[in-house]
Amino acid sequence: MTGGRRSVEEHVEHVAALLASLRTRPAVRVPLARALNRVLAEPIYAPIDLPAFRNSQMDGYAVDAAAVATVPVTLPVRGVLAAGDGNSVHEAGTARKIMTGAPIPDGADAVVPVEDTDSSVDGGTATVTVHRSVGAGTYVRERGSDIAAGAELLPAGQLIAARHIAALAAVGVTSVPVRALPQVAVISTGSELVFGGTDLGPGKIFNSNGPALAASALANGADVVSVDHSDDDAEEFAAKIAHAASVAEVVFTSGGVSQGDFEVVKDVLGPRGGEFVSVAMQPGGPQGTAIVDGVPVLAFPGNPVSALLSFEMFARPLLRAAAGLPPIDPVMLPLTADLTSVTGKRQFFRGRRDGDGVTVVSGPGSHLIAGMSGADVLLDVAADTTSLRAGDLVKALPL
Amino acid sequence: MTGGRRSVEEHVEHVAALLASLRTRPAVRVPLARALNRVLAEPIYAPIDLPAFRNSQMDGYAVDAAAVATVPVTLPVRGVLAAGDGNSVHEAGTARKIMTGAPIPDGADAVVPVEDTDSSVDGGTATVTVHRSVGAGTYVRERGSDIAAGAELLPAGQLIAARHIAALAAVGVTSVPVRALPQVAVISTGSELVFGGTDLGPGKIFNSNGPALAASALANGADVVSVDHSDDDAEEFAAKIAHAASVAEVVFTSGGVSQGDFEVVKDVLGPRGGEFVSVAMQPGGPQGTAIVDGVPVLAFPGNPVSALLSFEMFARPLLRAAAGLPPIDPVMLPLTADLTSVTGKRQFFRGRRDGDGVTVVSGPGSHLIAGMSGADVLLDVAADTTSLRAGDLVKALPL
Repeated sequence: MTGGRRSVEEHVEHVAALLASLRTRPAVRVPLARALNRVLAEPIYAPIDLPAFRNSQMDGYAVDAAAVATVPVTLPVRGVLAAGDGNSVHEAGTARKIMTGAPIPDGADAVVPVEDTDSSVDGGTATVTVHRSVGAGTYVRERGSDIAAGAELLPAGQLIAARHIAALAAVGVTSVPVRALPQVAVISTGSELVFGGTDLGPGKIFNSNGPALAASALANGADVVSVDHSDDDAEEFAAKIAHAASVAEVVFTSGGVSQGDFEVVKDVLGPRGGEFVSVAMQPGGPQGTAIVDGVPVLAFPGNPVSALLSFEMFARPLLRAAAGLPPIDPVMLPLTADLTSVTGKRQFFRGRRDGDGVTVVSGPGSHLIAGMSGADVLLDVAADTTSLRAGDLVKALPL
Repeated sequence: MTGGRRSVEEHVEHVAALLASLRTRPAVRVPLARALNRVLAEPIYAPIDLPAFRNSQMDGYAVDAAAVATVPVTLPVRGVLAAGDGNSVHEAGTARKIMTGAPIPDGADAVVPVEDTDSSVDGGTATVTVHRSVGAGTYVRERGSDIAAGAELLPAGQLIAARHIAALAAVGVTSVPVRALPQVAVISTGSELVFGGTDLGPGKIFNSNGPALAASALANGADVVSVDHSDDDAEEFAAKIAHAASVAEVVFTSGGVSQGDFEVVKDVLGPRGGEFVSVAMQPGGPQGTAIVDGVPVLAFPGNPVSALLSFEMFARPLLRAAAGLPPIDPVMLPLTADLTSVTGKRQFFRGRRDGDGVTVVSGPGSHLIAGMSGADVLLDVAADTTSLRAGDLVKALPL
């Protein structure tokens, strides 16, 4: 299909179907030191009890509670237990000095904090005088009281933060199965584009879509495996799209999809089953999709604002879902000033949060990329809305 | 000072002074492709006008508006201008077919969209019939209308997102000065710790503080240059802290700061001017600070919840400020259930957002690291507050 028209919703649905394969990719295993900000592909069950053994919550004396039921009482001290020491056996009516985290001797059932005791050494015999009774279980961390072996420690879909790494390390997990990063290739097109660092000849512009789409993909959980550029040359583009499809799971292109005389993406992919349509939105109307060697291609328009907006609308939600990242939901914000919109197309304005409200920044032109850099939301105005007043709520999609 | 007592606020202030050098580090320059999520160290001014030349906003015909003041009118077509073409000169009363982005010929001042025209070729002479008048400037993108050369494109302190990379690339910027990532070393201590993947012998626990502090630093803008472990052996720890200080700008340690018989961090750093104090908070009371070979050291307690909470309270704000990242501010949330707290110490409970409110999860024990992994906020209850009722607002620090 080339030349058809679609609503934004229809195109969203079309692209979602095209990229459905991204959702069912196998998990990958990464070492814990590389797991930050990844998303668990499966639940993690605790392989051990945590704590793995009964241990002391305080620096103090391990006792049997019965021996300190009446205080003050003086008990012989049978040595010292440090964290890391092995098992020992308690003798009723005695005490062991014990450090936080050290294993409670078998038969002891409570710890008296050091501040409730006095110790002395009399002729080689150490004793401790206990001034406060403790009930059984006092300052004892029971085995499995944090989590029991076999219990779910973290659910599938968990975005891994430092505290999750702490818990995983604590139960001895050294690597985790995480959602694979979607592998993305980007191809900017247009003979008018040159690269920063080279001379900007007459009529030329610097290529911003390549770096911008690559950064957008990266920022939304993708692994950007290739960033390339093609002039408006069918042979060059055909070769580059084939290469991109050979290394990536999804390809984004910019430019070459409109109604001009030189539309390289449309010219190459149209005859190969690509669909090039007009989506009822501004900016970003001309959109293409194709499948190249089994790999989905989203062909975005070349105006820099249009390209970024197309990514936000059509690619971002699917990339995030593939990576297991939470969606970025629109919020309703009050306008700080009146706004007029043309009818018949869903309009996207660049907006900036301004106190509790939102202000339109930059003009409507799809080339105003410097203007867009000052925005932090896209204002999404429905096709049948032609004007909004200051104070009206408008749908704002965080960038 | 060893054995002193401090309020949380006093210790925050003490640590801020100790880490003050982190705020004044020189910027580093990174290529644009590595600039995502970095923070600009200086403002960026546009090196060129954007657009760099007058160009067409539409596919259509470049004309002088005077020639199409009365319509319909048929004009001779003097060729085609594509994006990327160089300068040309307009002849009054003629038209050039022009593609979006192509330079407007000198002397032309408007573009008639292709849909308002009919074209024909008659005996080798191409003509276009214009059906709608356009005013001067119509569909012309003026030079510098997005941003003028020399104007500030992005301010110092800007956290760089994809749209900023787009704008930077569009003006030909290829690298940017960004805040240097604070270089962090982590040393966990404790002879009871073993590493995941090895056998958990009697009395031993898996080392979670090393991975957790490293991940915490990484998640807050740091470059983690060393993660090491020391047994409770003064010679080993002295060697490892010296190494850490030789490679990092700040060192975090865990364990060995309390009142037990074997406190390796305190034993080594106390005599070298380290300060080991009791901060009026739970968990996380025992805290140490030192300067080793000119490098600040924050010595956190060894209980895993205490270590993470110490990082959040004392290290996170300073690391983020050093990296130029925005602070994470506490929010006030209503409790879903009553809460009791002990008096005299600022208490931190692990909480989880639950609808619009917050629920305490996990117990108060500072060893409950699996429990903490289920939290997403720390509830910060003041020292003089002993009970809160369901519905009361509580200060919640997002994790």
